[in-house]
Amino acid sequence: MEKGVIGVDIGGTNTVIGIFNHDLELLEKVSIPTLKPNFPEKTSNPKEFFNLIASEINILAERNGYKNNISCIGMGVPGKVNPNIGIVIRAVNLGYEDVPFASEMEKRLGVPVFIDNDVRVYTRGEALAGSGKGSKNLICLTLGTGMAAGVMINGQMVTGSDFYAGELGHDPVEGVNYLCNCGKTGCLETIASASGISRLASEAIQSGEQTILKLADGTISSKDVYLACLQDDEAAIGIFNYVGKTLAYKLLTVTFLLNPETIVIGGGAAAAGKFILEPIQKVFKKHYSNNEFPNITIGSLGDSAGLIGSVHLAKSEYEKKK
Amino acid sequence: MEKGVIGVDIGGTNTVIGIFNHDLELLEKVSIPTLKPNFPEKTSNPKEFFNLIASEINILAERNGYKNNISCIGMGVPGKVNPNIGIVIRAVNLGYEDVPFASEMEKRLGVPVFIDNDVRVYTRGEALAGSGKGSKNLICLTLGTGMAAGVMINGQMVTGSDFYAGELGHDPVEGVNYLCNCGKTGCLETIASASGISRLASEAIQSGEQTILKLADGTISSKDVYLACLQDDEAAIGIFNYVGKTLAYKLLTVTFLLNPETIVIGGGAAAAGKFILEPIQKVFKKHYSNNEFPNITIGSLGDSAGLIGSVHLAKSEYEKKK
Repeated sequence: MEKGVIGVDIGGTNTVIGIFNHDLELLEKVSIPTLKPNFPEKTSNPKEFFNLIASEINILAERNGYKNNISCIGMGVPGKVNPNIGIVIRAVNLGYEDVPFASEMEKRLGVPVFIDNDVRVYTRGEALAGSGKGSKNLICLTLGTGMAAGVMINGQMVTGSDFYAGELGHDPVEGVNYLCNCGKTGCLETIASASGISRLASEAIQSGEQTILKLADGTISSKDVYLACLQDDEAAIGIFNYVGKTLAYKLLTVTFLLNPETIVIGGGAAAAGKFILEPIQKVFKKHYSNNEFPNITIGSLGDSAGLIGSVHLAKSEYEKKK
Repeated sequence: MEKGVIGVDIGGTNTVIGIFNHDLELLEKVSIPTLKPNFPEKTSNPKEFFNLIASEINILAERNGYKNNISCIGMGVPGKVNPNIGIVIRAVNLGYEDVPFASEMEKRLGVPVFIDNDVRVYTRGEALAGSGKGSKNLICLTLGTGMAAGVMINGQMVTGSDFYAGELGHDPVEGVNYLCNCGKTGCLETIASASGISRLASEAIQSGEQTILKLADGTISSKDVYLACLQDDEAAIGIFNYVGKTLAYKLLTVTFLLNPETIVIGGGAAAAGKFILEPIQKVFKKHYSNNEFPNITIGSLGDSAGLIGSVHLAKSEYEKKK
């Protein structure tokens, strides 16, 4: 029997582990809590978490008939990652610093482990098995709590000079003054993210705009705004128009420079579909005269993009090293 | 004796041909007119020009002791180029369309010929032998009649999905309404280019701003504006501040996305040195907190970047194919 492949998608709260067959078809996935030190403590060796992941992988493998029959493991970690040496340099939301992730997992499991930044892993998923399938030059955005981008050029993921590539969420937007989690003001992610959309909706309500949106417990989600769009709520549609247009001008700059085949809009807020997509496409129609590229589209893998990307990462790196 | 290498830098008016030794040291260069059909005629086979280049190369080789002893030839062409198959798809200013440049030159000279877009060749020059030496991730701008960019990622030149990468000059700038040569309005190159600077200077004079700048024959060059900066002319300094700041915000977007080690400012207007560089660096200092990268600098090869890039292109492609 051909060996199985394990994918691990580490999130700020939960971690999803999936077992795939050799053809990268998902057999089963489980979710476990992401173990991390209490803020503001930091660790360079989250032993308990490593042990928990290893034990879950062994259970998954055995239950699916792959006991001692795994070829390799791929993992996506939210933070600054050096994929070449398998180290998590810094993962602020997890409290990890200089964690030799790959080697610690290899020690426990006896098979090669490959890691990368979660957004690059997500991008890899959409590029190889999702909306970007077949593209060699692709930009993928994740509009979640924050906002980040993955870039693939000639089929290779771009990590940047010191692993800071993809931080488009912190690019300043003229005229925007919201305080960002990073400490600066006016970052793109303060509006172009699920949290940004939520904030814009709260403001619209508080300023007395006519809308069916209502604050429940003082908050409103980007999904609520999307649902209001489906009922033709103009304030809600206006929020996605504004967010899409703002994103579009940043994506135009990127497109003029890199001429990608595909731009994938992913992350939680991408569930809004055409309400986020059409304002972007409209700006491109006006300003970008290359008719063929880029194809701007919503990610097709949803929540699974990270998990699927992690097994593609594992398999391609494993085959390179074989 | 080791073989020589020929570089050819084709410009809108003149073409420079250089002969280099095996170590890529320039031995001699000559300039010939760029032959092209009269506008609006077009050609897919500029035979006379090919014959002229071939004859000049043979003369150069013989005069420098390299008769029948050239290993390869590199050429930079201003237009849309497919370097993989050696074809100039479109060079609007030259009136060329679908010209099998590399194979036509190979037929005449009997050695491998490699071509690429002039800005990518220029970028290669600065990246391998100029200000960007040692960088694997680099952005290079050419501020000339127009404005374009070259991108190197992991040591590889980025061509884009259909060879349109680098067209940053046509990215729209909010609030700018000048008509661009491309037919659109507000393109970055309508201000961030030698011509753009010239236009801004003319406007400053015509609007009665206090300045030592004077219109000679109705025009003023970006060099004139630079010379006025050297005399502390506030209007001139203001023009470079505005151009630098506008460029900086576009470069910030690019930097957040790609995390390059080096950004090289090249082309004619880069002769302004610190007057164009410092406004860019100031914006980065304010908005980009990665202290190590990018190094933002003026190109060090000046006019020779294209010629030097073309021999580096030739040598590296030749060695790949050997």
